[in-house]
Amino acid sequence: MTELPSAPHRTTTRVRYGETDQMGIVYHANYISYFEIGRTECMRRLGVTYAEMEKEGFRLAVVEVSARYVRSARYDEVLTIETRLTDASAVRLRFDYRVLGPSPADGEDGPLLCDGFTVLACLSEEGRPTRIPSPWRERIGRLSAR
Amino acid sequence: MTELPSAPHRTTTRVRYGETDQMGIVYHANYISYFEIGRTECMRRLGVTYAEMEKEGFRLAVVEVSARYVRSARYDEVLTIETRLTDASAVRLRFDYRVLGPSPADGEDGPLLCDGFTVLACLSEEGRPTRIPSPWRERIGRLSAR
Amino acid sequence: MTELPSAPHRTTTRVRYGETDQMGIVYHANYISYFEIGRTECMRRLGVTYAEMEKEGFRLAVVEVSARYVRSARYDEVLTIETRLTDASAVRLRFDYRVLGPSPADGEDGPLLCDGFTVLACLSEEGRPTRIPSPWRERIGRLSAR
Amino acid sequence: MTELPSAPHRTTTRVRYGETDQMGIVYHANYISYFEIGRTECMRRLGVTYAEMEKEGFRLAVVEVSARYVRSARYDEVLTIETRLTDASAVRLRFDYRVLGPSPADGEDGPLLCDGFTVLACLSEEGRPTRIPSPWRERIGRLSAR
Repeated sequence: MTELPSAPHRTTTRVRYGETDQMGIVYHANYISYFEIGRTECMRRLGVTYAEMEKEGFRLAVVEVSARYVRSARYDEVLTIETRLTDASAVRLRFDYRVLGPSPADGEDGPLLCDGFTVLACLSEEGRPTRIPSPWRERIGRLSAR
Repeated sequence: MTELPSAPHRTTTRVRYGETDQMGIVYHANYISYFEIGRTECMRRLGVTYAEMEKEGFRLAVVEVSARYVRSARYDEVLTIETRLTDASAVRLRFDYRVLGPSPADGEDGPLLCDGFTVLACLSEEGRPTRIPSPWRERIGRLSAR
Repeated sequence: MTELPSAPHRTTTRVRYGETDQMGIVYHANYISYFEIGRTECMRRLGVTYAEMEKEGFRLAVVEVSARYVRSARYDEVLTIETRLTDASAVRLRFDYRVLGPSPADGEDGPLLCDGFTVLACLSEEGRPTRIPSPWRERIGRLSAR
Repeated sequence: MTELPSAPHRTTTRVRYGETDQMGIVYHANYISYFEIGRTECMRRLGVTYAEMEKEGFRLAVVEVSARYVRSARYDEVLTIETRLTDASAVRLRFDYRVLGPSPADGEDGPLLCDGFTVLACLSEEGRPTRIPSPWRERIGRLSAR
């Protein structure tokens, strides 16, 4: 894989009540969904709408996920999800994530709550490993050349 | 629709940690998933495995759901889901549910936590309303004749 | 309960991948979470942040939920959640919801996907039914007087 | 941490409809919930009911999670979750998981779908890192001495 010096893409999400658990904090598995929100928006900015990719018969299947939990998030907080495409080969993509808590003051970053990564493999409609379609590879390549 | 005097079918599920919320009880939307567990097992007992039904190109889409919450459930409790097929027409099925808490003593029912119902409509693979395939209608009919 | 002629409050949410099911559409129970998003934002606009309400020792427990499904939503669509406070007594609130699909053209509403309502009861920290604290009742009353 | 030669504990779960996504397979984040089911049952067998542990004022917070996805699971399949306590210190526990698909034949293991691990840290009710209470440490120690 080529390491990609992409700038992090930022998006936000507000914690839903149903995402908390009886510890009074966000249930850990829900961060994996937050990663997905970050990835979807990061890809959209790269010019690759994942929904379109699926319509053309390609899928990105998560083959690995990893997360470390540092601080906890609470109901109704607005979290920032920072996503970076950090590696790309002909068949795989790796995204790295940092989920930040609410900003303590204007212009300042909130504390790190969780970081992690996912590796995704491109599959055909039948579920067979396949190359990432070239229009998307090019967009990713242009990014990588920057 | 014909009213069906079916005996309730019972299945159990244990509350997962992630199903609780910060009130320390099961988040209300998760009961709708419990209803689905009850429905899947009730249909299996009627001789209609829903997974097979989908493989043959039919779907049952939920068109209405209703639930009343009476008492709350807690993490790790074993709940009983009671499901009855209460109405069936050529194109729709209605299931009624009662979710009970842990039994206070051997052979005794636990307290009612939640009751409700769902109405399901049969759809073709393309998503068009269609008749419930006759082999399944017959199984349901035999049930109704009892 | 007094009927409240409140204008609907609108908020949006984008469908997450994990919210779809194998029918290729949003799983029906997830609309109950969408209702919660709408309710949280509607209350915030009324001047009642639910997170604060809990900090002061009050809870709003869902005691009834009902939903009718008209059309389906798909991954990555931006849905509009329309929420209205339709009834309020000293101890209960009722909210009505309409979830709309993506707008077909600028300024036009998207199609109705799902409508429904929830009834919430005010509880003390110990879980006992209690009156909605008067500062909040007043805000709701002012709304109702309009 | 001491490496613990514990035998794997096995439990099963049936895939719910709402756990699938539009790829027609179990959404990847749901395996993290399956890990939790395995962990809860593994701890119960060790004589440590997690629900009781919380009642006595201790919590186990997930501080790290990792999963690799090998094959996919489908709706209604009965999965086997294999859980092993693989490391234990005074303040942390590590559990390793293997999720297996339906058995192809009586007495044979199903194919590996997903493996992974979680690290949990013991916290006091106030959320401060604390030692795992000694009654539980002893039970875990006895296990480790075997």
